[in-house]
Amino acid sequence: MVLERVKQMSAHLTGQLPPPHPFDPLSSAEIKAAVAIVREEHPDVFFNAVTLLDPPKKEMMAWLAAPDSTPRPLRIADVVAIGRGSKVFDGHVDLKEGKIISWALTEGVQPLITMEDLQVVEAVVRKDPKVIEQCGILGIPAEDMHKVYCDPWTIGYDERFGSGVRLQQALMYYRPHPDDSQYTYPLDFCPIFNADKQEIIHIDIPKVRRQLNTAPPINYHAKAVEAELGVRTDLKPIEITQPEGVSFSMDGRTIKWQNWSAHIGFNYREGLVLSDVTFNDRGNVRNTFYRMSLTEMVVPYGNPEHPHQRKHAFDLGEYGGGYMTNSLSLGCDCKGAIHYMDAEFVNRAGEAQTIKNAICIHEEDAGILYKHTDFRDESCTVTRARKLIMSHVFTAANYEYCVYWMFMQDGTIQLDIKLTGILNTYAMNPGESAAPWGTEVYPGVNAHNHQHLFCLRLDPNIDGPNNTIVEVDAVAAEAPVGSPENFYGNAFYAKKTPLTTPATAARDYNGQTSRTWEMCNPNKINPYSKKPASYKLVSREVPPLLPKEGSLVWKRAGFARHAVHVTPYADDQIYPAGRHVPQTSGEPSAGIPDWIQQNPDANLENTDVVLWHTFGLTHFPAPEDYPLMPAEPMTVLLRPRNFFTQNPCMDVPASYSSTPTQMAAGKGGIKGVVDNISRLAFGSDKVKGGSNDAAASCCSAKK
Amino acid sequence: MVLERVKQMSAHLTGQLPPPHPFDPLSSAEIKAAVAIVREEHPDVFFNAVTLLDPPKKEMMAWLAAPDSTPRPLRIADVVAIGRGSKVFDGHVDLKEGKIISWALTEGVQPLITMEDLQVVEAVVRKDPKVIEQCGILGIPAEDMHKVYCDPWTIGYDERFGSGVRLQQALMYYRPHPDDSQYTYPLDFCPIFNADKQEIIHIDIPKVRRQLNTAPPINYHAKAVEAELGVRTDLKPIEITQPEGVSFSMDGRTIKWQNWSAHIGFNYREGLVLSDVTFNDRGNVRNTFYRMSLTEMVVPYGNPEHPHQRKHAFDLGEYGGGYMTNSLSLGCDCKGAIHYMDAEFVNRAGEAQTIKNAICIHEEDAGILYKHTDFRDESCTVTRARKLIMSHVFTAANYEYCVYWMFMQDGTIQLDIKLTGILNTYAMNPGESAAPWGTEVYPGVNAHNHQHLFCLRLDPNIDGPNNTIVEVDAVAAEAPVGSPENFYGNAFYAKKTPLTTPATAARDYNGQTSRTWEMCNPNKINPYSKKPASYKLVSREVPPLLPKEGSLVWKRAGFARHAVHVTPYADDQIYPAGRHVPQTSGEPSAGIPDWIQQNPDANLENTDVVLWHTFGLTHFPAPEDYPLMPAEPMTVLLRPRNFFTQNPCMDVPASYSSTPTQMAAGKGGIKGVVDNISRLAFGSDKVKGGSNDAAASCCSAKK
Repeated sequence: MVLERVKQMSAHLTGQLPPPHPFDPLSSAEIKAAVAIVREEHPDVFFNAVTLLDPPKKEMMAWLAAPDSTPRPLRIADVVAIGRGSKVFDGHVDLKEGKIISWALTEGVQPLITMEDLQVVEAVVRKDPKVIEQCGILGIPAEDMHKVYCDPWTIGYDERFGSGVRLQQALMYYRPHPDDSQYTYPLDFCPIFNADKQEIIHIDIPKVRRQLNTAPPINYHAKAVEAELGVRTDLKPIEITQPEGVSFSMDGRTIKWQNWSAHIGFNYREGLVLSDVTFNDRGNVRNTFYRMSLTEMVVPYGNPEHPHQRKHAFDLGEYGGGYMTNSLSLGCDCKGAIHYMDAEFVNRAGEAQTIKNAICIHEEDAGILYKHTDFRDESCTVTRARKLIMSHVFTAANYEYCVYWMFMQDGTIQLDIKLTGILNTYAMNPGESAAPWGTEVYPGVNAHNHQHLFCLRLDPNIDGPNNTIVEVDAVAAEAPVGSPENFYGNAFYAKKTPLTTPATAARDYNGQTSRTWEMCNPNKINPYSKKPASYKLVSREVPPLLPKEGSLVWKRAGFARHAVHVTPYADDQIYPAGRHVPQTSGEPSAGIPDWIQQNPDANLENTDVVLWHTFGLTHFPAPEDYPLMPAEPMTVLLRPRNFFTQNPCMDVPASYSSTPTQMAAGKGGIKGVVDNISRLAFGSDKVKGGSNDAAASCCSAKK
Repeated sequence: MVLERVKQMSAHLTGQLPPPHPFDPLSSAEIKAAVAIVREEHPDVFFNAVTLLDPPKKEMMAWLAAPDSTPRPLRIADVVAIGRGSKVFDGHVDLKEGKIISWALTEGVQPLITMEDLQVVEAVVRKDPKVIEQCGILGIPAEDMHKVYCDPWTIGYDERFGSGVRLQQALMYYRPHPDDSQYTYPLDFCPIFNADKQEIIHIDIPKVRRQLNTAPPINYHAKAVEAELGVRTDLKPIEITQPEGVSFSMDGRTIKWQNWSAHIGFNYREGLVLSDVTFNDRGNVRNTFYRMSLTEMVVPYGNPEHPHQRKHAFDLGEYGGGYMTNSLSLGCDCKGAIHYMDAEFVNRAGEAQTIKNAICIHEEDAGILYKHTDFRDESCTVTRARKLIMSHVFTAANYEYCVYWMFMQDGTIQLDIKLTGILNTYAMNPGESAAPWGTEVYPGVNAHNHQHLFCLRLDPNIDGPNNTIVEVDAVAAEAPVGSPENFYGNAFYAKKTPLTTPATAARDYNGQTSRTWEMCNPNKINPYSKKPASYKLVSREVPPLLPKEGSLVWKRAGFARHAVHVTPYADDQIYPAGRHVPQTSGEPSAGIPDWIQQNPDANLENTDVVLWHTFGLTHFPAPEDYPLMPAEPMTVLLRPRNFFTQNPCMDVPASYSSTPTQMAAGKGGIKGVVDNISRLAFGSDKVKGGSNDAAASCCSAKK
């Protein structure tokens, strides 16, 4: 068994397997190799993370441009380890040379809380005498402590305890029965867990005590729903098949589809990462983005009562969107013809863990791609669209985030996020009002106002790394109505403001000007429009951070102070709230504010820049969100503008197309690639000639 | 033949067919009957519109509440006719009594331009000596006048010609070959067409002449694309089927699906109209909206050069979204199992016309409806969503609007609009810059900046007609950081402001507060949240009208001055820019500004109100939009908030669901209604156990 492992571990290191793409996540073998190398010098550490250190961009760009003649970037493992006395070590391991190339004790930080870290808290809480005492006060006898549950969160930051000791706060719940949703029975006190000593060091008890909810359970499992509501029987199946297979191909982790190519990475922190995203523009493979990912988020809650200010989870930086990712399933999470990819991580003991089907890749029909009818003769072209979806879903305690990266045929990249799962809830007394900081979503259940603010890291590579970010506002002309320049008052234009330095590039959203941001290559001017090749960020769910300037959240989540920040590219600037997020005080604020302060006047024009975009939504809960919240969608678009010289998907086969001369010759329509599968809902008698006839008469059925 | 017609005409009038639903559009028989009745007294008129006059709401509400015991509202035809000397008549015809109940000459107005009105202009233009002369100046010889085309638009308003004469402006183009897209060859002059005399009365000639474009054609028909670009061959079919049929049923024009019920109307002006929209809340059929439709739009162009100020089409009010609607086709416009509905209109001669397949109705899978995994044991529930889509597509000369009304299982109503078709283009000289009012999208082709501003008319009926509109802003608490009320600075809440009078209810969008508007029933308080039952309007593409205050467009499109207007309900207030839109001067501004002025201080609280929402987008063209624009989507959501006492779709069958006790008993997951059709893209070897196994291990594949 050990021999087998060693063999696996060293397989590609000794050349028996093709070498991984430099962007590939560390394989199980590489994780084990890194662990083994660390263990040689540091036998007693536990592992928090062993992940790919992204290759230096300069090396990687050179290799991507000429992989056969350029040295392959090294495989370096980026390691976070925890030693005796909860010492934190940050290290880099060269997997080829088999040696540690850097290893440092990092003081005053706490690395993220892993799923294993979370799992241990509940058992400790249940045995703690002071917790048992508090449960007793709420009417839960000691013998029922197995009915007490907790969602352990990072503590965020609590000035009483600082950053020196690794802590979690245990949000407490009760389940009358193991299958009951605990979120209906929140407990009003909050134990603080010391992860080093695995003990409860303090319990926050509110001044006003809230009793244990007496409302009946409301559950979401099918078994409970069937018993309580019954299950509707009027939904007929929809079957989606690709009898000739899918339209994408995989070369390792590099996907190719409809002129797009991208490397699909995955790490413990961000989950899905797309790198080296290119579009084949009629034979010319053009760069669009070097790297793109959701890289941080913060979920501040709006109730000022102590200790709810600590509820502002950085779900990526404090827990890891990769670590929390779900195993996905055919027909459940994704439908149709699916390709899955697994994710491999280290565990605390240094073993490699696999999450099967962590990434789902599939195509979907996407409605009308474009259409036009000439009103003179009804000659018409209509073409259906397809999209490619690369997705993962992660569970952050009560909540679910479904992340969908999509490529469109027209060169658009779309990021959809669906929010689902269960609201974080708190106790309330009968007669107490949840307003204005929350909503009573079910009797005795207070769901607090909160925001979900995501930080999207975009490393544009618009026809090369030298790009400029330009803010675009739709504004009326300055000249007044009646003036010679604007006599009828109808003039308006796109006002463009380049973002020139980090200090001045912290920008807010402006709905009144439909503000967008263009990532431009000023060196590549579109021959027709004379405007620079660009990708435009179109994002409309862009609330400001509602916690006030100077607040705890404002200090810690510097990235969320503005909708857009721009920084010069740096290899080590991936995480906008810092490398180690739990228990940061925000003084000074790690990540983006720190980077800006380091060089506020750096040049951002026509150089290698990174755009950080914070977007999301503000959620005022309602009973409709309970017991399980219907998925709420959000969309961010990246659209090519002046990048192509024409609509880049004109060569997608039409479903139907006819020209004026064909119409005049009485030939009517020419049936294109329209399927023969679509049918009339209630039989062919409803449309004369039946379904095939209806398809053939596409766009020409008007008499 | 005549006998047959009369028989058809009188069939339901004499009781041989079931009577139409009072919301049903006029049938061909009813249109013919109305025409025949009008003709008896007014034999010489031509018909502009013969459409259903919506029944008085009071009568209709009574009938809907008790159809068996309440008199059925009368079928009244609303007629617009044009008599000798272009006199305009507005009339109502009682179809039951077979008589005209009102008939009036309406002076100083011009009814909308029909497709027939549009079709006649091109032939006149081609023969006009002054047009031929202008073409000659641009190098088009008289013998090539068959290569000259025009898109006739309403003139909008031109102060030189006023409203007394029925006019169109002919936007001029050239086609080297009949199959070439004319939009590559715009001509720089603009003839004015007198529709009464069918002659050109004036030609607007710009001070700076622009030459005929010499660039090669760029076309969008499949034939041209195949010759010029080739057609991509790497797209594999996606087949969508419903082997057991669809999940909706039709009773006449009333659809039932997943607790929803609605009447689907259609008229020449608005196209699709949904009325009497209800949701069956576990046996309690609850009202949501009495009537909802896209009822007006305006497309202002931003180039101040004369006469481009006239380009600001009110596509619904000036041409009719119904009149311009497409015949849709299986597998082209809609895919899967489709139900179509036809549309019936009058023509100029008074005959009934049918547009086959004007409305497409179908279901689509809609991804994850909700999901939650308990991180402790990976017990999990995941349920897939379905949506119902009712759509139509209309062509406004160069442009296409695809309108999708959707019902969601969670009680949400979603309106999506996709913009496609061809940009309106204008000529430019070599070396001339299109900036800042437009973009050169192809050599010699100037596409002007423009906006698409839609007006959504919502007649809420949230558990009854007495509703209040409340503006909701997400704001930080007023108390400063460090104060006892907001020590950590994290407090925020939903600030609610009822809109109390029409004068004060003209409201703008505010992206900084994620502003929404709730349509509430203050008499129906949610028993859990203690908040009124409501539907929330969530709309994020809400640019202001960019033409300035006091401009021609601002005067004519009063509805577009604000994102929201609220008015007391009135039966005759359907069209926010007025009943007859072409050639209105905007002085005074018809529709909403007029209605507000009539009663600025009317009570809007807890009464029957209408919410008018203007939304859309500002479009700065780019070469990517040419020669045919990839569909650009927009979304408006109407979401139930505090309307239900829990997530209303908890009873949708789960795809997979397991409880903690099932997991503990080693039973693993319980497979729900997950399909057996979904497959792995590259064969079962990629996921251990194959696809069925993968489905069965849903949510539990993590080891």
